[in-house]
Amino acid sequence: MNNSGPLKNIRVVLTRPSHPGNVGAAARAMKTMGLSTLALVNPRRFPHPDADARASGALDVLRHARVYDSLAAALGGCVLAVATSSRQRELRHELMTVRDAARELLAQAASHPVAIVFGNETSGLSGEEASLCQLWACIPANPEYASLNLAAAVQIFAYELRMTLPAGSRRQAPEFEPATIEQVEEMYRHFEQTMTHAGFHDPANPRRLLPRLRRLFARARPEAEEVNILRGFLKAVDKLRR
Amino acid sequence: MNNSGPLKNIRVVLTRPSHPGNVGAAARAMKTMGLSTLALVNPRRFPHPDADARASGALDVLRHARVYDSLAAALGGCVLAVATSSRQRELRHELMTVRDAARELLAQAASHPVAIVFGNETSGLSGEEASLCQLWACIPANPEYASLNLAAAVQIFAYELRMTLPAGSRRQAPEFEPATIEQVEEMYRHFEQTMTHAGFHDPANPRRLLPRLRRLFARARPEAEEVNILRGFLKAVDKLRR
Repeated sequence: MNNSGPLKNIRVVLTRPSHPGNVGAAARAMKTMGLSTLALVNPRRFPHPDADARASGALDVLRHARVYDSLAAALGGCVLAVATSSRQRELRHELMTVRDAARELLAQAASHPVAIVFGNETSGLSGEEASLCQLWACIPANPEYASLNLAAAVQIFAYELRMTLPAGSRRQAPEFEPATIEQVEEMYRHFEQTMTHAGFHDPANPRRLLPRLRRLFARARPEAEEVNILRGFLKAVDKLRR
Repeated sequence: MNNSGPLKNIRVVLTRPSHPGNVGAAARAMKTMGLSTLALVNPRRFPHPDADARASGALDVLRHARVYDSLAAALGGCVLAVATSSRQRELRHELMTVRDAARELLAQAASHPVAIVFGNETSGLSGEEASLCQLWACIPANPEYASLNLAAAVQIFAYELRMTLPAGSRRQAPEFEPATIEQVEEMYRHFEQTMTHAGFHDPANPRRLLPRLRRLFARARPEAEEVNILRGFLKAVDKLRR
């Protein structure tokens, strides 16, 4: 899985973060999804032991973080900056979902640096900061309590970026051999025989028993080995009645 | 946006959480996305001031959290439990993405309680805990550092549930009554007894027979009526050996 190319071009920018613990947790959130470039605009305290503690195994992201004295400087070289909010304070830009924003970001990041900008924990982004961004992404949230932790917002955005990476890298190939249709049909016949001989099924009064079994196993889509197990059990039952 | 109906049926279960701060942060993550039912299985310390501090405005979720002494008890009344992992330790169940799992959960949660299960921060879910779940959801992560914070994993899952809400509420309620987890567990016990007495299963040499059965039926997610049918058959088999 080496399609982290575009992720290297994506810069996470935290403007005026108040709590060093949040900076560390944001670094950890980034690294879990393959992001590594962190920019801090006027952090209140950095570096700080709380940041290190919450970064856990992502200390390298913190160590390489660059500190800037303005958002404009932190966006240097970027072709696109997305402002993030879980609140809908002011519609100065077109709002899009994080999912749609992730697509836009990855498309640009194939060839150019881009940025995702997060505001201060309490006050969010200022109007001036927002005006430096080209897109506004909104994290959908509970209207009665939309107060996402800063690192939680970074985690969601980073997760959407990873989910949007070219598919095929995320999903696992099935490890097991599915049963053929014939094998499953033979199993149904075996169930019918054994259930009849056990006195559980009466072919003259079937009560939709077999259609129900079919429905159950159709949902399960059994593997060859599972069909073997069930038929082994039915064979053991067949011997009981001798 | 008042389609929080199905969210009320979704229980977040944290098994053996070590750090009370994570429990509080998980409560906050839940509430930001509209989830409110938190279940804790043998938390190391709870309640705790660190949990309160990290919960921020979600203290109500913490106050209503229920503590259980086993995962089975915490899943009481649920018809579906999804195990969550960012690592791919063992493929005992089919892995799906959190996004797909969110769809399954919301479809069931329209009418029945369901659960999302998170393991301990360090050790994850035990094999026994995992075997009580019917689906495994994997959070895609950086293979070089997949160590998501517990609350960050809860945040991602809760976000996906919220993102899936509109589509989820359009879905039809299931037409049939799903079996509860307890009913399915009783069916496994019955299978084990009957298979043992039929000479098909040797508890001294189990050959992974029961885990395989669990895996098969976890995929099928049987209805209450289907469990009744299978147990009716097992009862008929039980009479054969008299």
